[in-house]
Amino acid sequence: MLMLVGRRWLSSGLARRALHRNPHEMTLFEMLGCTNLRKSTPEDYRILREIVNSFERHSGVGNDIQLTLEEHTANELIMCEKKREYEKGIMDPSKFAPGHHFFQVLNKVKNSPLFQILRKMPKGAALKTHDTSMCSSKVVIEMTYRENLWVYTTQAGCRIMAFRFAKEKPKDVEHEDGEWQPMEKLREFRGEENLKNYLRVRLSMYPLASFSTNAHAWRHMIGIFNLLDGLLQYAPLWGDYYYNALKEFYADGVQYLEVRTILPELYCLDGSRLPKRETVRIYKDTLERFKKENPGFIGSKLIYAPIRHVQPEVVGQYVKECTELNKEFPDFVIGFDLVGQEDVGHPLSKFAEELLKLPDHINFYFSAGQTNWYGSHVDQNLLDAIVLGTKRISHGYSITKHPVLMRLAKYLNIALEVCPVSNQVLQLGSDYRSHPAATLIAENVPMVISSGNPGYWRAAPLSHDIYMAFLGIAPMNADLKFLKRTAKNSIRYSSLWDEGKAEAMEKWKKEWDEWIGDIVAQKEKVFKKEKN
Amino acid sequence: MLMLVGRRWLSSGLARRALHRNPHEMTLFEMLGCTNLRKSTPEDYRILREIVNSFERHSGVGNDIQLTLEEHTANELIMCEKKREYEKGIMDPSKFAPGHHFFQVLNKVKNSPLFQILRKMPKGAALKTHDTSMCSSKVVIEMTYRENLWVYTTQAGCRIMAFRFAKEKPKDVEHEDGEWQPMEKLREFRGEENLKNYLRVRLSMYPLASFSTNAHAWRHMIGIFNLLDGLLQYAPLWGDYYYNALKEFYADGVQYLEVRTILPELYCLDGSRLPKRETVRIYKDTLERFKKENPGFIGSKLIYAPIRHVQPEVVGQYVKECTELNKEFPDFVIGFDLVGQEDVGHPLSKFAEELLKLPDHINFYFSAGQTNWYGSHVDQNLLDAIVLGTKRISHGYSITKHPVLMRLAKYLNIALEVCPVSNQVLQLGSDYRSHPAATLIAENVPMVISSGNPGYWRAAPLSHDIYMAFLGIAPMNADLKFLKRTAKNSIRYSSLWDEGKAEAMEKWKKEWDEWIGDIVAQKEKVFKKEKN
Repeated sequence: MLMLVGRRWLSSGLARRALHRNPHEMTLFEMLGCTNLRKSTPEDYRILREIVNSFERHSGVGNDIQLTLEEHTANELIMCEKKREYEKGIMDPSKFAPGHHFFQVLNKVKNSPLFQILRKMPKGAALKTHDTSMCSSKVVIEMTYRENLWVYTTQAGCRIMAFRFAKEKPKDVEHEDGEWQPMEKLREFRGEENLKNYLRVRLSMYPLASFSTNAHAWRHMIGIFNLLDGLLQYAPLWGDYYYNALKEFYADGVQYLEVRTILPELYCLDGSRLPKRETVRIYKDTLERFKKENPGFIGSKLIYAPIRHVQPEVVGQYVKECTELNKEFPDFVIGFDLVGQEDVGHPLSKFAEELLKLPDHINFYFSAGQTNWYGSHVDQNLLDAIVLGTKRISHGYSITKHPVLMRLAKYLNIALEVCPVSNQVLQLGSDYRSHPAATLIAENVPMVISSGNPGYWRAAPLSHDIYMAFLGIAPMNADLKFLKRTAKNSIRYSSLWDEGKAEAMEKWKKEWDEWIGDIVAQKEKVFKKEKN
Repeated sequence: MLMLVGRRWLSSGLARRALHRNPHEMTLFEMLGCTNLRKSTPEDYRILREIVNSFERHSGVGNDIQLTLEEHTANELIMCEKKREYEKGIMDPSKFAPGHHFFQVLNKVKNSPLFQILRKMPKGAALKTHDTSMCSSKVVIEMTYRENLWVYTTQAGCRIMAFRFAKEKPKDVEHEDGEWQPMEKLREFRGEENLKNYLRVRLSMYPLASFSTNAHAWRHMIGIFNLLDGLLQYAPLWGDYYYNALKEFYADGVQYLEVRTILPELYCLDGSRLPKRETVRIYKDTLERFKKENPGFIGSKLIYAPIRHVQPEVVGQYVKECTELNKEFPDFVIGFDLVGQEDVGHPLSKFAEELLKLPDHINFYFSAGQTNWYGSHVDQNLLDAIVLGTKRISHGYSITKHPVLMRLAKYLNIALEVCPVSNQVLQLGSDYRSHPAATLIAENVPMVISSGNPGYWRAAPLSHDIYMAFLGIAPMNADLKFLKRTAKNSIRYSSLWDEGKAEAMEKWKKEWDEWIGDIVAQKEKVFKKEKN
C-alpha cells in the first residue's frame, strides 16, 4: 500500500522522520512514531490521509476479492443502484429503508431496483435457519387444508391456540372457553379469506413493529413456534415443510442450507410418536428427492439444536442422542447447538462438562451473544462458545463489546452468523445503520449473512437480510467484492468437507457467472436504449 | 495475568503444547497456537476460560485504577445499587431506564438511588458544552423578566419566534401575522404560568421523543439555538448566562468546563454590536468573579467553534480570528472547532488547507463522526480530524466502524467526547445498551463523558450522561474504577497545561475524597440501622 504513494511519501517530512528502516515493512504506527501531526504541511496531510484511507479501504470484508472484467461491469450497475438509494437517503433520511423497521418498508423494498438485483444473486448457503420458521406463511396456510386437521380455538373461534391431526376429536381442553373443531368447520364459520388473513397475522410477528421489550418479542415468537408444533410435527407433513423450505430458499438464490432442528418425535394420526431417527430419516429422504429434481442444488445438513432451558443432565442426554444420530447419519447430522432465548436460559458454562463429551468430529455451532445485557452472565455465552471450540457463532450480536473475543474469533477462524432482520424484529436494534456487524465488516472478522426465522417476518428466505446488510450495515463503498466474499464465506464456513466445498463452490460459481452475465446484458440493453 | 493461574495452567495440556518459550511473555494467540479447542479436557476449558475472562476484565476503561480501602467500601454500596437496577432490568427489561428514551424516564431516574449517588460525584471536567445550551430553562425563563425585552410572535401571540432587547419596538417583521410586543404584555396576555410552561417546551426538544429522522431532530434543535440568540446575545446577559452555567455545572459536581462558543458579536440596547474580543472579555471577567466566589472551582476555557456551513475562505477568516484572540487571551481561547450538523455541512477535508494555518499551539478539538452514514463523505471527517492532529474528538460516534482510526486515536492519545443522551435525542441510537461507546470502553480507547446541550433535554449538566454511561453502556461489572478513570480522564484530556492539571487534580481529589467519605458514612449508617 505504501507503494501507492511511494515517491511522494518518501519526500515528505513525516517519512523522513521514520526512515530508519525499510518503510515497506513498517506498520502505520511505526511510521507515525511520536509525530506531532500539527507540524504537517498540506502535502504531509494529503499523503497521510491517503495512506490511512487506503488502509481502511483495503481492510474490510471483501478486500481480498479480485473481480473479473465482467464482474467489474456488473459492479458498476449494482453500485449505481446502491448509490442512488444511499444518496437519496442522505438527502432525506426518512426515505432510507434501512433506517426503518422492516415491517414498515417491506413493500417499499420489494420495488427497489437494488433489491431486484440482489434477489437474483446466487447467495451460496444459508447457515442459520430453524426447522419450523423457514417457509412463508403461504406454505403453512396451504397445509391447513390437509385431511384430518383439528383446530383448538378460544374466544368463540376467534383465536387459534393449537392444531392437531387426528381421526377423532381430541379430548384435552386447556382453556375454559376452548374447543376443538375440524379445520374445515372453522373455515366455513369464519370465511375462507378471513381465516387466511387471520393466519397470515397469527403466524408472523406483524403488525408489532414495536414491542415494549425484546422479552416481549421473544414471547410472541415462541408463541408462533408452539402453535406450529401441532401442525408441522405431524409425520406426513414434516418432510413437505422441509421440501417447501428448500424450494423457497433455492428460488431465492440459496443452494445449500444448514438447519438447526429440535428433532421432535413426530406423531402419527393415531397419536403415536416416532423416534427421533425417523425425523432425520424423513429429512434425508426429502433432501435426496429435492436434489434429484434440482441438480443445481448443493445440499443441506442438520445441526441438532434442542432447547437450552433445561438442566445439565438433560444436555447430557442431548449429547448422547446427537452422538447416536451422527453415527447413523455421519454426513447429515453434523453439529450441535442449544436454542431458545439466551436471556432467560442457563449459560453455556453450566453445561460445559456435558458438552465436552460430544465427540470432537461433531462440531459445535453455538448460539451466543444474542443480547444487549453487556457483561451479564448471558453475555458470557460468547466466551464459552469460543473456549468450547465452536465452529461458528449464531448471532454473536454483542461480540463488538468484547474485543478479546472478537480477535479470538478472527484468529480461530470462527464465523459469525449475522441475521440483520431478526435482530431488529427481536428488538436488539432499531436502525440497520447502527448494527454492530459494521465493525465486523471493518475488522474483517469471518462472517456470513443469514436470516434466522424469515417466515415469521414475511421476509424472503435470504434476500432481505443481504439487502439490509449491503445497503444499511456495510459502508457506502462496499460493492460486489463484499457480496462475493459473503457468498463464498457461506460455503467456506459451512460444515461441508473439503471435497464437498470444492463441488459446492463449482455449483455456486456456475450460477454466479450466469447472474453476472444477466446484469451485464441488462446494462447493455439500458445503454443501447439510452443511445437510441 | 498468567501468574494468576500459574500452576494449574502449566500442568494443562494446552500449556504443554505451548511451552517452547517463557509463557509470561506469550500473547494469548501465541499460547493458543493452532490448538484444537475441542481436544480440551474440562480442566483445560476451565483454565482457558479463566485466562480469557481475565484478559477481558483487565483491559477496559478503569483497569489501571487502584482503589483505596475507603473506595473499596464505597464501591460496594455503589455496585449494590447498580446491580439492583441491572438485575431488575434483566428480570423485566421494560423497567430498565437505559432501555428507554431519556424523555420518558427523566422522572424515574431522579428517584434512582444510584443516580442520587452519581449526582453528587465529583466528575472533574465537562469538556463538551456549547455556549447557549448549558443552562436549565429555569435560568433562561428568569432572563425573560429583564427590562426592555421585546418578543416577536406569530399566530396571534401563540408562537414565539424571536426575542430582542431594545428601547423602542423593533421594526423588522418577517411573517405576515408576526408582531413585536413587550415581553410583559405577552406575559399578561397569556398568563404568567402558561407562558412559563410554554417556554419550558419551546426551549427544549420535548415532547418529541421520536423524530422521524435525525435531520428533523437537528432542525428542531437549531430552532432553539436561533430563538435564544436574540435573548442571550444581549451584551448584559451573556455573562449572566455563563455565570449561571458555571453555577449549575459546579452544583452537579463539575469543577472545570471547556465551552465551544461561536463568539457572537454581542449587541447593546441601541442595536450596536461589540467586537468578538469583548465577548471573550465578558467570559473572562465572569469566570474570574465565579472563581473568586467558589475557590473549589478549577476553571474554564474557550474553544472557538464557529458554524461549519461556510466556504473555505470564511474558515480562513475564522482561523485568523482565533489566532488573534489567542494572542490576546493565550490561556483562555485555547482551541478551535467547527460546529453544526455534520451531515449537511462541508467535510473537514474541504477546509484542510485553511485549518493547517492555525498556529500549532492552538489545539483542534474537532467535532466528527456524529453520523450513522457509514462511509459517506461526512463520515470521513473522523479521518480528517485525526490526520489534522486533533487533540480530542467531539462525539466520534461512528469510530467503532473505523478500526484503523480507533487504533490511531488510542495510539495518538486522542480522547473521544462521548455524549450519550445527546446521541439518543438526536436520533443516532435508541437504546443506551447499543451505544458504540461500549466498544471504546472495552478497547480502553481514551474517552471522556460529556453532555453537549443538556439544557435542551432537561438533563442535569452531566449526571444523567454519567448515569446512562455507567448503567446502560458500560459492562455490568464496571464499577468505581470506571467512574474514577472517567473523572480523571476529563482533567487529563483537558487543555490545561501540566501545572494546571496538577492543581486541578488536587482540587478534584479533595472533593472526591469527601464524596467517598460521605458514601462510607451513609453505608455505616444503613449497616447500624440493620444491626439494631
